[in-house]
Amino acid sequence: MEKHNEHKTLNHKSSKEKDQITNRLKRIEGQVRGIQNMVENDRYCVDILVQISAVQAAMKNVALHLLEDHAHHCVADAIKSGDGEQAISELLDVFKKFTKS
Amino acid sequence: MEKHNEHKTLNHKSSKEKDQITNRLKRIEGQVRGIQNMVENDRYCVDILVQISAVQAAMKNVALHLLEDHAHHCVADAIKSGDGEQAISELLDVFKKFTKS
Amino acid sequence: MEKHNEHKTLNHKSSKEKDQITNRLKRIEGQVRGIQNMVENDRYCVDILVQISAVQAAMKNVALHLLEDHAHHCVADAIKSGDGEQAISELLDVFKKFTKS
Amino acid sequence: MEKHNEHKTLNHKSSKEKDQITNRLKRIEGQVRGIQNMVENDRYCVDILVQISAVQAAMKNVALHLLEDHAHHCVADAIKSGDGEQAISELLDVFKKFTKS
Repeated sequence: MEKHNEHKTLNHKSSKEKDQITNRLKRIEGQVRGIQNMVENDRYCVDILVQISAVQAAMKNVALHLLEDHAHHCVADAIKSGDGEQAISELLDVFKKFTKS
Repeated sequence: MEKHNEHKTLNHKSSKEKDQITNRLKRIEGQVRGIQNMVENDRYCVDILVQISAVQAAMKNVALHLLEDHAHHCVADAIKSGDGEQAISELLDVFKKFTKS
Repeated sequence: MEKHNEHKTLNHKSSKEKDQITNRLKRIEGQVRGIQNMVENDRYCVDILVQISAVQAAMKNVALHLLEDHAHHCVADAIKSGDGEQAISELLDVFKKFTKS
Repeated sequence: MEKHNEHKTLNHKSSKEKDQITNRLKRIEGQVRGIQNMVENDRYCVDILVQISAVQAAMKNVALHLLEDHAHHCVADAIKSGDGEQAISELLDVFKKFTKS
């Protein structure tokens, strides 16, 4: 399994699934814009912080969805084709990033 | 200290500070758009997940900056003016949200 | 407010409150011993991991309880006596540790 | 793969590895006892909170070690023997627990 991943793609996703993910990301993008307005309009810090934690929770859910999908497809396929070691290490690296961020 | 906060503002922030925060949020907004493109272009899940954890880390830093500023200004002022109990409870509620999200 | 804290104590806690916290910590200590037995008895990894996350959640609750108590007493007192800056910075440092651990 | 796990064991671990994990858990057990003493001796809250976050970090490292080992052995074996779906879902459930605790 090549170290650099540009040849590996997400093509196990249906376009409907991809639309669902991009729509969630568009909503998050809008939330981030909304937080900018709150800062520009001197809104109370706690109200802004509550919105930021909502964005964090929404992003985490997108990540868990992608992680689940990746594990069931890319990692499982890699293990079946004898490439399991690296795929599992990669999965755990991603997991460690999320327990820190 | 009124429960509903629209009368309380962020006005202890200089416009320079506010610009810094909104610029950071604009960069995050751009990163979220970038992730949408990665999904649309079937980029490898792990690469997308790495970008999502970068957004999470950037948002957390904005939150910590706001939290620090809020504690040193709004909470300290509230305590000095005898309104400390509610200001501290509010601060801890925000803490709890961030240790969950 | 001296940097080193051995002169500052927790004495705003009633002995009843202290007993409650130490009892919770004793239960956590027992849980950690239980996890050792699970490892020694070759229990299934996922069952062990579920127990570890229960210990993490229990420890976090003890921490949030102490944090709340610290903010309402030590930090509030420090602010009233003009030592707010350092007390708030200390509180935020603790908070940052918990969003990482 | 049976839902209830008492037939599945950790037996892919050498006794040396198991000793390493139980020794780390014994150290954590000692740290928790140390925190009890700090509370009983009215030590400063921030010092206690710093010790609690050290226990959290140590427990998380034990968990990551077990998770890595579980993924490379139990999950990989399950996928190779055609039981991948449940093994991966179980792994992701553990992920989710740790991003919340």
